[in-house]
Amino acid sequence: MDFLKPESVLDLDNIRSSLIRMEDTILFDLIERAQFHRSARVYTYGSFDSLGKYSFLEWMLRETEHMHSELRRYESPDENPFFEDALAEPLLPHLNYPDVLATYQKEINLNSLILKHYIESIVPMISAGPNEQPENYGSCTMCDIQALQALSRRIHFGKFVAESKFRQDEEKMAELIRAKDTEGILSLITKPAVEKQVLKRVREKAESYNLDPHTNLRWSQKTQGKINPESIVEIYENCIIPFTKEVEVQYLLRRLE
Amino acid sequence: MDFLKPESVLDLDNIRSSLIRMEDTILFDLIERAQFHRSARVYTYGSFDSLGKYSFLEWMLRETEHMHSELRRYESPDENPFFEDALAEPLLPHLNYPDVLATYQKEINLNSLILKHYIESIVPMISAGPNEQPENYGSCTMCDIQALQALSRRIHFGKFVAESKFRQDEEKMAELIRAKDTEGILSLITKPAVEKQVLKRVREKAESYNLDPHTNLRWSQKTQGKINPESIVEIYENCIIPFTKEVEVQYLLRRLE
Repeated sequence: MDFLKPESVLDLDNIRSSLIRMEDTILFDLIERAQFHRSARVYTYGSFDSLGKYSFLEWMLRETEHMHSELRRYESPDENPFFEDALAEPLLPHLNYPDVLATYQKEINLNSLILKHYIESIVPMISAGPNEQPENYGSCTMCDIQALQALSRRIHFGKFVAESKFRQDEEKMAELIRAKDTEGILSLITKPAVEKQVLKRVREKAESYNLDPHTNLRWSQKTQGKINPESIVEIYENCIIPFTKEVEVQYLLRRLE
Repeated sequence: MDFLKPESVLDLDNIRSSLIRMEDTILFDLIERAQFHRSARVYTYGSFDSLGKYSFLEWMLRETEHMHSELRRYESPDENPFFEDALAEPLLPHLNYPDVLATYQKEINLNSLILKHYIESIVPMISAGPNEQPENYGSCTMCDIQALQALSRRIHFGKFVAESKFRQDEEKMAELIRAKDTEGILSLITKPAVEKQVLKRVREKAESYNLDPHTNLRWSQKTQGKINPESIVEIYENCIIPFTKEVEVQYLLRRLE
């Protein structure tokens, strides 16, 4: 997929194959996190004096985003920072991304919602147990950052989906937008058959990536550092799919600006 | 596995299950890198004026290590930095790791060898093609850093293997060490049956993680962003296994100091 050609970026088949590839990244990152216990202190404000007003995770995520911004990560239309105020001027020359999305797209950012959902629902569900593992705070935070960035990229890819759907059916879409008909837009962008297929596929992927060919054990038999395929399905059902649709709706509602 | 108890850290079964778990991390990281083209400019000195004397990868790796050192990553006996001179004082209180390894262990560091092998052999072998993808320099470097850190941790785990083997057969080992008999040590620590099993297992894992259940395509049919299982076997055969043994030998040769 040539990312620099608008017609290719907005081709729904290309978007879909990017989304399918991102499933693997998300699964890998969550399986990595599942090795470690919950370690709630990582997410608790004031756990470490030296990190000021930030939690351990927030501190590392901010530092990471600062560094990545110097390498122009957030110039890319498919990247959205968690901490806008932590970003720096890029050290590298700008890349000329084509104008594929509407200019207000950078204002649509669900990351605080994603972060909250990740800490409150996903970590307790997937971690290896409820305990603290101080010797693994760093490792588990690294996994958290990877997973959060992957989830964020996947969910905000809804902007490309929305733009593509808008162009496919401009007349009908414009009508709903003018009427501020959120429900109508939601219903137009929802494809139950596609969603069902996504859930089926991620369950199968989770089963395949969870298999330990050495012992032939699957998750239910408590292989080390693995993840329940049902958890992945739940994450797609309760977070990734609805949050993506929220991005699409927010994007579309402003599309006639 | 309770990492903080020496007798558990040096239990060969525990070491082996950690090594097996690390196979997954390495595989995930390499599969992630395999999405992108080679992008040789990332590894070339002077490609970007603003990054001074460092390549893009080196710059990001140094910045990453600086940040991680503040969070005491390199206090952990199983972590070794690529750029010692980039490290900072930890911001967090020290963790009291038990003295499991000999004190000179931090001087054994094969990272420059690992970095060279990774750039010259592994990247060309696994990347999606030979081209430059400027819009993915950041993403592919993130994958490189993950993969390098995973390879480094896996290879330097040889120190734990060596210490454990030393304690198992102290008399024989001491004799070889006193005689500076590198070949003898190498032969004592080499277990061809175990190596064969490792190669068989990583091939099977690569096949399982490469499977796209959606299309039922495997690597040979060019699924997007996948990796040839034979490449993983080659990386274990020509890099991970021999480099780990090199770490073991270097560690053992000084064990009577």
